[in-house]
Amino acid sequence: MVKMGVAHFSGSYSPVPSDTMYSSTLLSKSSIKTSPAFTLNSQVFQTHIPKPLNNNFHSSQPLTLKSLKVRAMDTQEGVPSMPSFDFHGIDQKLVDRMVYDSLVWSSLHGLVVGDKSVQRSGKVPGVGMVHAPFALLPMPFPETHWKQACEVAPIFNELVDRVSLDAKFLQDSLSRTKKADAFTSRLLDIHSKMLDINKKEEIRLGLHRSDYMLDEQTKSLLQIEMNTISSSFAGLSSLVSDLHRSLLDNYGKLLNLDSKRVPGNTAASQFADALAKAWTEYNNPRSTVMVVAQADERNMYDQHWLSSLLKERHNITSIRKTLAEIDAEGELQADGSLIVDGQAISVIYFRAGYTPTDYPSESEWRARLLMEQSSAVKCPSISYHLVGTKKIQQELAKPNVLERFVDNKEDIAKLRKCFAGLWSLDDSDIVNKAIETPELFVMKPQREGGGNNIYGNDVREALKALQKEGTEEDAAYILMQRIFPTVFSTFLLRDGICHKDDAISELGIYGAYLRNKERVIINEQCGYLMRTKVSSSDEGGVAAGFAVLDSLYLT
Amino acid sequence: MVKMGVAHFSGSYSPVPSDTMYSSTLLSKSSIKTSPAFTLNSQVFQTHIPKPLNNNFHSSQPLTLKSLKVRAMDTQEGVPSMPSFDFHGIDQKLVDRMVYDSLVWSSLHGLVVGDKSVQRSGKVPGVGMVHAPFALLPMPFPETHWKQACEVAPIFNELVDRVSLDAKFLQDSLSRTKKADAFTSRLLDIHSKMLDINKKEEIRLGLHRSDYMLDEQTKSLLQIEMNTISSSFAGLSSLVSDLHRSLLDNYGKLLNLDSKRVPGNTAASQFADALAKAWTEYNNPRSTVMVVAQADERNMYDQHWLSSLLKERHNITSIRKTLAEIDAEGELQADGSLIVDGQAISVIYFRAGYTPTDYPSESEWRARLLMEQSSAVKCPSISYHLVGTKKIQQELAKPNVLERFVDNKEDIAKLRKCFAGLWSLDDSDIVNKAIETPELFVMKPQREGGGNNIYGNDVREALKALQKEGTEEDAAYILMQRIFPTVFSTFLLRDGICHKDDAISELGIYGAYLRNKERVIINEQCGYLMRTKVSSSDEGGVAAGFAVLDSLYLT
Repeated sequence: MVKMGVAHFSGSYSPVPSDTMYSSTLLSKSSIKTSPAFTLNSQVFQTHIPKPLNNNFHSSQPLTLKSLKVRAMDTQEGVPSMPSFDFHGIDQKLVDRMVYDSLVWSSLHGLVVGDKSVQRSGKVPGVGMVHAPFALLPMPFPETHWKQACEVAPIFNELVDRVSLDAKFLQDSLSRTKKADAFTSRLLDIHSKMLDINKKEEIRLGLHRSDYMLDEQTKSLLQIEMNTISSSFAGLSSLVSDLHRSLLDNYGKLLNLDSKRVPGNTAASQFADALAKAWTEYNNPRSTVMVVAQADERNMYDQHWLSSLLKERHNITSIRKTLAEIDAEGELQADGSLIVDGQAISVIYFRAGYTPTDYPSESEWRARLLMEQSSAVKCPSISYHLVGTKKIQQELAKPNVLERFVDNKEDIAKLRKCFAGLWSLDDSDIVNKAIETPELFVMKPQREGGGNNIYGNDVREALKALQKEGTEEDAAYILMQRIFPTVFSTFLLRDGICHKDDAISELGIYGAYLRNKERVIINEQCGYLMRTKVSSSDEGGVAAGFAVLDSLYLT
Repeated sequence: MVKMGVAHFSGSYSPVPSDTMYSSTLLSKSSIKTSPAFTLNSQVFQTHIPKPLNNNFHSSQPLTLKSLKVRAMDTQEGVPSMPSFDFHGIDQKLVDRMVYDSLVWSSLHGLVVGDKSVQRSGKVPGVGMVHAPFALLPMPFPETHWKQACEVAPIFNELVDRVSLDAKFLQDSLSRTKKADAFTSRLLDIHSKMLDINKKEEIRLGLHRSDYMLDEQTKSLLQIEMNTISSSFAGLSSLVSDLHRSLLDNYGKLLNLDSKRVPGNTAASQFADALAKAWTEYNNPRSTVMVVAQADERNMYDQHWLSSLLKERHNITSIRKTLAEIDAEGELQADGSLIVDGQAISVIYFRAGYTPTDYPSESEWRARLLMEQSSAVKCPSISYHLVGTKKIQQELAKPNVLERFVDNKEDIAKLRKCFAGLWSLDDSDIVNKAIETPELFVMKPQREGGGNNIYGNDVREALKALQKEGTEEDAAYILMQRIFPTVFSTFLLRDGICHKDDAISELGIYGAYLRNKERVIINEQCGYLMRTKVSSSDEGGVAAGFAVLDSLYLT
């Protein structure tokens, strides 16, 4: 759950660094309605914040501002010195200059989003733009964990592909979820239909993002979730790294920070390259890439960056269509190829369709089915989409399951090392433990999108209610170990205003995977997304809970 | 006079292609109050539109849509073919795609301005951004006239420098203006003070823009004015050329237009280079460039582009200060150097100070004097500023005046070829002629800024009133020949909306000049600004009178 806006609830917001605060994408995957108790009316940049909790279990997790412990680095003069992330003594004038420069940089370099206060900003490009929310300086992150996250990316890519081919595993694992969750049920129906017609996906393209948090106590990098559909921010996050490098080039000496410690981020160009290679594999020079978009999308520039790079670097055009438009304008040719609005479609890149609200009528489901039936490369296919569900994540974490899909024992160990504790609600021991110590767990709905996670005392109440009901409703959730990352002081910029606050971060690692039958064409890690979120409420509660784009500073 | 907004007056707007509709910069130089009859309440992108005229003299100037006559060009296939600027038959879907692409391009590449509907957009960068108004496609322009305008730029640069050194000529020429115009009077006072202390400007930097219109009947390129202070849009106009080249790369074949016919536009980088070289000449490595800015500036990104290039290409920092801030924070050192806010200033780049409204109190005038007294390179110096007045333009057009400043006869001929008819109001023959045929003249106030020009019947009334008064008030104006450029059909984009309309264009040619004593370091033409403006009201009067950034297509 990510809160980009001002907290509008009354009462104090418990300073809870929750792993799942980040399990949705920063922007648009936040408007999902699930259980009545957690109905949301979220907007872009404004998602659900856990309700204030009455218990004070967080007092056992003191969130004092840590002074950063980083390893010594050589300065230009050859004298080891410590980079400083302790901003207590920082000169306000220096901050003001960096803030101004970074706002200018964002405006000139397209680090922008639609402003929710401007009505047309999600529909018409070029109007109602505002800089994307970002952190003024990169977040410190241990180089060893960064390398670990990068190294495991191709293994996860391969895992997704292997699991996607095991239709029975997907259907069986999700059979109970199907009964409790209408959305997953519809996806499974499409999956079943493809099985019935023996549909094969020979060219398979995955543009994933695996999200992690670094647990402070255990110093372990733990996976929050694997996004296999609509992994957002490849476009904008690349820019944030550039911005931070530029700022450190100019002001790094004053802060004792070296711009070279911010890893370069080529997520946008690598995603564009992968889409281009998929287009090439499909081998119709007259075809186009179709971006499946929401009708109202304030994060459109993140998507436009990919289309722009696709055109500039590969001279491949793309069109944007909503699911409803695809239903109206799309048709399947006898040879299985897809024509939309008169144009041959070779690659379908989903930036919509991951959440129930994207399917307000049967029209959208027809469009999804039509695309799945076609020979176009789908990013993702219905199988890839299903592999990204929480339930599959939880199934894969069970003993001996990874072994079904991965041969290499070292790879299995690397994957397993990132797995947080994940449990199904039919495990009564764990359910009882969670009722006893709810602060150590998060309840998560199955599907992609987030914004509906349950924390703290609410976990206890929800579990008790489900026990009482005795229905299949429990299959709509999994339980996950709660992760408590290190808190750092940082500067967060939103709407032209800079807030200093304590914050926690979540690291997303992008991965691209492309294969054609037995030939693996791409399997690589490509850039990253760092998101940073206020971990505590400030005095007035104004800045509580908003998240920003960030980059990382290797320590 | 430029109208970027919707026409708010009632009645019909006569389709008057007036030369002086463009004599102000597109944006911020438009809020000047002069004679009571023409008091303005203009906003950024909204300046004065001539009041509807009752006489119908324009009917003698039929403004039918011309089908463009261009010379044959070779296509890729070697077959000569005509580029098409006749948009009557253009496919609406193609237009829609180009509009969408161009809006996206603007957003990603920093072709943006502050949105006047967002209060903070002129103060805080990164908020309330909207694409700059632009034409969808470049405006046809004869290559011969383009070359003529480029060729004459260094000669104008040199002329400005020569005239600036003739203090007596400036003071004498403006002596009557001084009595009628308080603003010019204040500038002359500073100029006099510098003469009194025998102040020498050894390093002289000019970043000029000479504006032209192409008179349809005579096929001659005529100068509208010479801007020697705050020549705007070097930053954004470079982007518009890139945008048009990109669009023609993608869609040119469908339109039979070749992107190579849009001249490259390096105005932004050349202006930044000139500022950098001036900084180098001043020779204080610890010094900074100071941009004198208005407190509320919606065209800030145009300026930020220059500062950004200055930093990226030359590693030179710049600061932005208002005149009031300079008064508060500036001090002159014993050696004549200027310190503002603790920083040594080597180059002062004025993007404010050209209009009376920039000097609401004595504080701003003190700041202007302080800067002029300093050893910093002023772009422009008070002398350069005065050379840019309408009165000097008119004096230079008198017989035998150019000969005082320019030695080369060919250069004189080239300059004179661009001069439109210009007259002082003490020439009673011309005044009588203008009363007789006001449609052939424009009355212009002396100073930079525009937005106060008088047209048509109002010329007659104004001249008669001045005759009756018999005061020195007439010295506040000059008379200029009215220029009627060719009208083309074009697409104008503003606020995300595309209007098709008949339009006229004005070409500005940027020039950079830098010398240190006898050494001329830079004297070059650097890029261009094309501005295109609706020439007629549409049925509802909605689009009447708004202007957009454009580029040119050589024919």
